[in-house]
Amino acid sequence: MSLDHPAEGHEFDQDTRVDKRADGEFTATLTDGWTTFTSHPNGGYVLGTALNALGQTLTQPDPLVVSAFFLRPAAPGPALLRTETVREGRRTATGTVVAEQGGKEILRATATYGDLTAEGRVLHLEGPPELPAPEDCHLPPEFAGTPEGVTIAQRVDYRYPERPGWLDGRKDGRPRTDFWMRFADGRDADVHSLPAMVDFAVPAVLEIGEFSTITVELTTHVRARPAPGWLACRVSTRHVSNGLHEEDMEIWDSQGTLVAQARQLAMLL
Amino acid sequence: MSLDHPAEGHEFDQDTRVDKRADGEFTATLTDGWTTFTSHPNGGYVLGTALNALGQTLTQPDPLVVSAFFLRPAAPGPALLRTETVREGRRTATGTVVAEQGGKEILRATATYGDLTAEGRVLHLEGPPELPAPEDCHLPPEFAGTPEGVTIAQRVDYRYPERPGWLDGRKDGRPRTDFWMRFADGRDADVHSLPAMVDFAVPAVLEIGEFSTITVELTTHVRARPAPGWLACRVSTRHVSNGLHEEDMEIWDSQGTLVAQARQLAMLL
Repeated sequence: MSLDHPAEGHEFDQDTRVDKRADGEFTATLTDGWTTFTSHPNGGYVLGTALNALGQTLTQPDPLVVSAFFLRPAAPGPALLRTETVREGRRTATGTVVAEQGGKEILRATATYGDLTAEGRVLHLEGPPELPAPEDCHLPPEFAGTPEGVTIAQRVDYRYPERPGWLDGRKDGRPRTDFWMRFADGRDADVHSLPAMVDFAVPAVLEIGEFSTITVELTTHVRARPAPGWLACRVSTRHVSNGLHEEDMEIWDSQGTLVAQARQLAMLL
Repeated sequence: MSLDHPAEGHEFDQDTRVDKRADGEFTATLTDGWTTFTSHPNGGYVLGTALNALGQTLTQPDPLVVSAFFLRPAAPGPALLRTETVREGRRTATGTVVAEQGGKEILRATATYGDLTAEGRVLHLEGPPELPAPEDCHLPPEFAGTPEGVTIAQRVDYRYPERPGWLDGRKDGRPRTDFWMRFADGRDADVHSLPAMVDFAVPAVLEIGEFSTITVELTTHVRARPAPGWLACRVSTRHVSNGLHEEDMEIWDSQGTLVAQARQLAMLL
């Protein structure tokens, strides 16, 4: 167990565990604990599992940028992970990981790792979302009640400053939501969970009446190692073109530091 | 020659030409016509060449999302391109292309192609940059004079509403610039040139005194087939963390349609 990894025993760590079979080959068992509206395991959870394998094969400690293509829906059950080291450089290391289930590729991700503690210029022209304290925000009772099949609602705690309009059937909202998030079992976020957590937001397009959207590709920049505590998040969509839309997600830690910036291309069904 | 491709004879098409050697194997010759401040060929130009090979191997017409990792600087001269079809689906097709020079991998890109003319919902919550007409904007004389080694300034026409501050040694600017762009030889943009053109902007961080930045990864969403004419562009950076920064680029066509949305993670040197 390295210092960069939190204690085992937390749900995310148990459920993303991988076992090395050979150089560049790992096995995992996707659980049914992270399913979403689609009843499939959340894509970020699957990616987090795949990165667990890739991170073990690269020498640098922190994922700096991860790009994942989601090729087929994942299902709870065994998965095979194949990793390839593409380049090991002085400051960065890059590799690809492919996840397969039933002999078919479900996810392909490429990532560059580096060291986020390296010295360098810092300049932030925007700050974190302005949110009331988590204890003054709401957990919608529908979330606490664990909607049928949406098991991720048991694993992740969400707090909203206002009740989301889509919960009451509104379809005329603004697809931009600021909220708090953390793992329900108290596991703090780290650089290894952030590329998964950027996909844990309730899709912003629910506010405009779109309940069925699938991720084609997700790119995440991990910008800093997060401090412990709640994460301030902003999820937003600005452009829907012919059924395709981007979804942006920013995550800030409890110290007000930007820790992840993500964008996905998604397709309305 | 397909209808989706402009007439050969234009510089971009000549310089990104690939020759098929075998299934999944192409050769190309990178030219010295697209070099930047770094004196290396522009990454977008190299990516455009690689996508020329990948696009020939997939059945869908339009790149929807492209993620490229830049592993080593490119050099003018021969390049080998290896393509792999990852998945051919009903609505989308995904593949990977690797570019090599001198036996070393310089670029790895994965892309999902589809059909941008497919029907689907349209909703734009933001409009294009508000720019004076191109004829009322400036071409900085330093650009027209072809700065030493920066050959891309001969291939691409830029028009700015105001003279960029960095040209006069200012380092206190705002890293967000709206400008017009087009190919200098009159070639209109298309879905195949857009994943290259999103990397043709002068980096936004020049306005904060950073002249040496290299792209680690570039993700582009191609959102529509562009209408002919000038492209309205916005390049911006909001966050520099430990020497790493994102650079966002949006491109709108002459009809005011968003045609490309891109983000890169770059590293200050």
